[in-house]
Amino acid sequence: MAKQEGITFKKSENFSKWYNQIVLKSELADYAPVQGCMVFRPNGYAIWENIMKALDQKIKARGVRNVYFPQFIPESFLKKEAEHFSGFAHECAWVTQGGEKKLGERLAIRPTSETIMYVAFSNWIRSHRDLPLKINQWCNIVRWESATKLFVRTTEFLWQEGHTVHKTKEEADKEAMEMLEVYRDLMENYLSIPVLIGRKTEREKFAGALHTFALEAIMPDGDAIQLGTTHQLGQNFSKVFGIKFLDENGKEKYVWQTSWGVSSRLIGSIVMTHSDNKGLVLPPRIAYAHVVIVPIFYKKVEKDKVLKKAKEVKEILEKENLSVILDDREGYTPGWKFNEWELKGMPIRIEIGPKDVQEKQVVMVRRDIPEKVTVKESELLKKTKQLLENIQKNLFNKAKKLLEENISTVKTYEEFKKVLKNKKGFIRACWCSDSKCEEKIKEETGATIRNIPFEKEKIFSDCIYCNKKAKEVVYFAKAY
Amino acid sequence: MAKQEGITFKKSENFSKWYNQIVLKSELADYAPVQGCMVFRPNGYAIWENIMKALDQKIKARGVRNVYFPQFIPESFLKKEAEHFSGFAHECAWVTQGGEKKLGERLAIRPTSETIMYVAFSNWIRSHRDLPLKINQWCNIVRWESATKLFVRTTEFLWQEGHTVHKTKEEADKEAMEMLEVYRDLMENYLSIPVLIGRKTEREKFAGALHTFALEAIMPDGDAIQLGTTHQLGQNFSKVFGIKFLDENGKEKYVWQTSWGVSSRLIGSIVMTHSDNKGLVLPPRIAYAHVVIVPIFYKKVEKDKVLKKAKEVKEILEKENLSVILDDREGYTPGWKFNEWELKGMPIRIEIGPKDVQEKQVVMVRRDIPEKVTVKESELLKKTKQLLENIQKNLFNKAKKLLEENISTVKTYEEFKKVLKNKKGFIRACWCSDSKCEEKIKEETGATIRNIPFEKEKIFSDCIYCNKKAKEVVYFAKAY
Repeated sequence: MAKQEGITFKKSENFSKWYNQIVLKSELADYAPVQGCMVFRPNGYAIWENIMKALDQKIKARGVRNVYFPQFIPESFLKKEAEHFSGFAHECAWVTQGGEKKLGERLAIRPTSETIMYVAFSNWIRSHRDLPLKINQWCNIVRWESATKLFVRTTEFLWQEGHTVHKTKEEADKEAMEMLEVYRDLMENYLSIPVLIGRKTEREKFAGALHTFALEAIMPDGDAIQLGTTHQLGQNFSKVFGIKFLDENGKEKYVWQTSWGVSSRLIGSIVMTHSDNKGLVLPPRIAYAHVVIVPIFYKKVEKDKVLKKAKEVKEILEKENLSVILDDREGYTPGWKFNEWELKGMPIRIEIGPKDVQEKQVVMVRRDIPEKVTVKESELLKKTKQLLENIQKNLFNKAKKLLEENISTVKTYEEFKKVLKNKKGFIRACWCSDSKCEEKIKEETGATIRNIPFEKEKIFSDCIYCNKKAKEVVYFAKAY
Repeated sequence: MAKQEGITFKKSENFSKWYNQIVLKSELADYAPVQGCMVFRPNGYAIWENIMKALDQKIKARGVRNVYFPQFIPESFLKKEAEHFSGFAHECAWVTQGGEKKLGERLAIRPTSETIMYVAFSNWIRSHRDLPLKINQWCNIVRWESATKLFVRTTEFLWQEGHTVHKTKEEADKEAMEMLEVYRDLMENYLSIPVLIGRKTEREKFAGALHTFALEAIMPDGDAIQLGTTHQLGQNFSKVFGIKFLDENGKEKYVWQTSWGVSSRLIGSIVMTHSDNKGLVLPPRIAYAHVVIVPIFYKKVEKDKVLKKAKEVKEILEKENLSVILDDREGYTPGWKFNEWELKGMPIRIEIGPKDVQEKQVVMVRRDIPEKVTVKESELLKKTKQLLENIQKNLFNKAKKLLEENISTVKTYEEFKKVLKNKKGFIRACWCSDSKCEEKIKEETGATIRNIPFEKEKIFSDCIYCNKKAKEVVYFAKAY
């Protein structure tokens, strides 16, 4: 019997080490032998596949079609939009040698694909009939990082980037706002993570955008994490790349554009939000499997009967598109397997022993809360689906409570700093809307403005930094 | 009305220009503004999605799970297996700068992932309980190319690479052979492209493999194309990377490995094989859509009725998971639309006019052969499915005939050269099995040995090059 070592760090005591241990031991991912990079192992990649599947359906239903553009971006393209270039140039990986040949111009590996795509758009778009153009790509992205945090911050990561082109500002506004809703649905109803939505400040917006809108969540250690963004790009890129169309009256106009993306860091946020000191906890809708069946027997004659029943149960559930693992490995005790599957985050464990076979029942155990129920075989399918739904909702409700408890309202900079020191979370405060105050606060405390809420909230104090008249209520936090 | 220009090159006259025109005008792909690279446009990428979906299901059913490894491979890793390195080093793109930092060791962008994966395998595998390990990744690959042929030969392309690890040689042999069958099923039953299967010569095998097995097809211009390979890697990599396991008796052993892959060049082979002088022709099972509905009307009162019916037809077909486009664009005549959808390879066109609405019927037109039938609405679904199945089979049968007509048997080098000059295709010939003859033939004619058939064929002449005693009947061809 292999020695089993569970999670040894506590979530409440050493969040960062606990997180790494969960990710590594549940075999979601591994460090790669290349600085800043990681390996998505099967359990982790399967979660990404489930996220892709859910989101891909939603965006295709909106008329978006998938594409694939080259990952190499000539430096001169990146440079075309000056703000964009200065935002990304310092974190690009550069290819300088192709085969035996030293390149005349170095190529960036895409940190995002606006520039390479928009050169093509300028060739594809001629008339109002070609609009709207809505495309998306699922791909790898490279942004050079010195620090590594599995899933959350790595030099190479996976994401999707949607890019849409419109005739009018209004259409582009609508697209950017509607995609926020698509993302919120994904995060809240699939990942069970509630989010705060709002507009980024000028300082925090995407390099090259007119406006950036963001979905922000809070993690149990009190740090915020940006889970997705949509950008109203305005005509910034279309003017630089010459993306024009003839409108219904034969008049030439520049297009309006949006881009939007979420990345594999979503997986990190799921792990942090839901897991506990026993290991991984996963929302069923994106879990790499739904149910593990652990057969329990001691004698050979029991074994055959129990395994036969276990296979029947597996089939019944699989017919309804549930993903089921039958753990019939030999040489491990049931107790050892229970621990292993708790560590690995299986939403439901079904135990079947000789008595259960006889009584036509199974024992079902939830991963999210300690609850063990005996279920009649005739109720198996119904009860499994119900439990999965309950787990999904329970995880969301717990996370929602966490979010609510982690929003503090402050009126002074002293209070602000005190909250940051003790509890962190989102800090709701009034701001004069001057970038200088924002900058100073970041320098002095590390906190940034995560969002300006869409629905303007009532001003309740002067600017917490300069004490001049406040113009906005905003949400600050330290962030991943 | 926009001017419409169809395919102006003839397949039989200028195959290469015809091919490019089809790919560009049917909007499968575009050249990228980066040397050697291409853009997968929505129609082309959707074909890749259909191929991925079909193959992914098949390999998952075999117990393979998907992963994602970093695309950066330190040069020292690539160098570990000497043969492997010499096979790939000259075509790598090299990253030498990461962010602001000049790298100490340059990083290759994966030309294939054996070396980066096998470092991880050596950490993951300890015991016979950890085997077999079967993983796969869908990703982008870079191999520096000077010449570009859309889909077929580009610096960056998309592929899947499967990697499996086994206890014994026999298990690895079995995996490599069974994956060949999976690929054959994909190519013949989804892409409608018949293949010749066999073993590669020592000279042509994958750099680092014990044996390479390949699936080869013939294109209408007489050139062969390698559509997929599986490799029995033996213990070449496991010895270099130290991938060992303790067997049931506690004895330490090196593992046996396989790898296997197909790439987005499959799309190129589909286009070349099936398309005609009017445009793209696609096998329905991988087509980006199955049916286009073109409504036909001249008066406003007709329009409403016809469009209503068209939408009903669309719904009926979509309920059965068929992908349907309703071309209700205004400002284009039905005739213009017919041409457009022929060019773009829609397998079935459904025409609905006022008379059809009245008679409760539609007109169905096949893309692969000139056939137009009137179908009662009550038969719509059944007939559509039948037609799609017929098109799928008809395309395969035509391609099968092409393959059969393009296998020539020769007994002398003179005959060999004559066939290469006039007709090309596969040339079945006897060979002494000496690499020197193989090398000389390539130098003098450009033809290579594509396959040694698994079932040894009866020797019917001396070696065509050296005239010494032949040991193998093999298939030569010029290849893409």
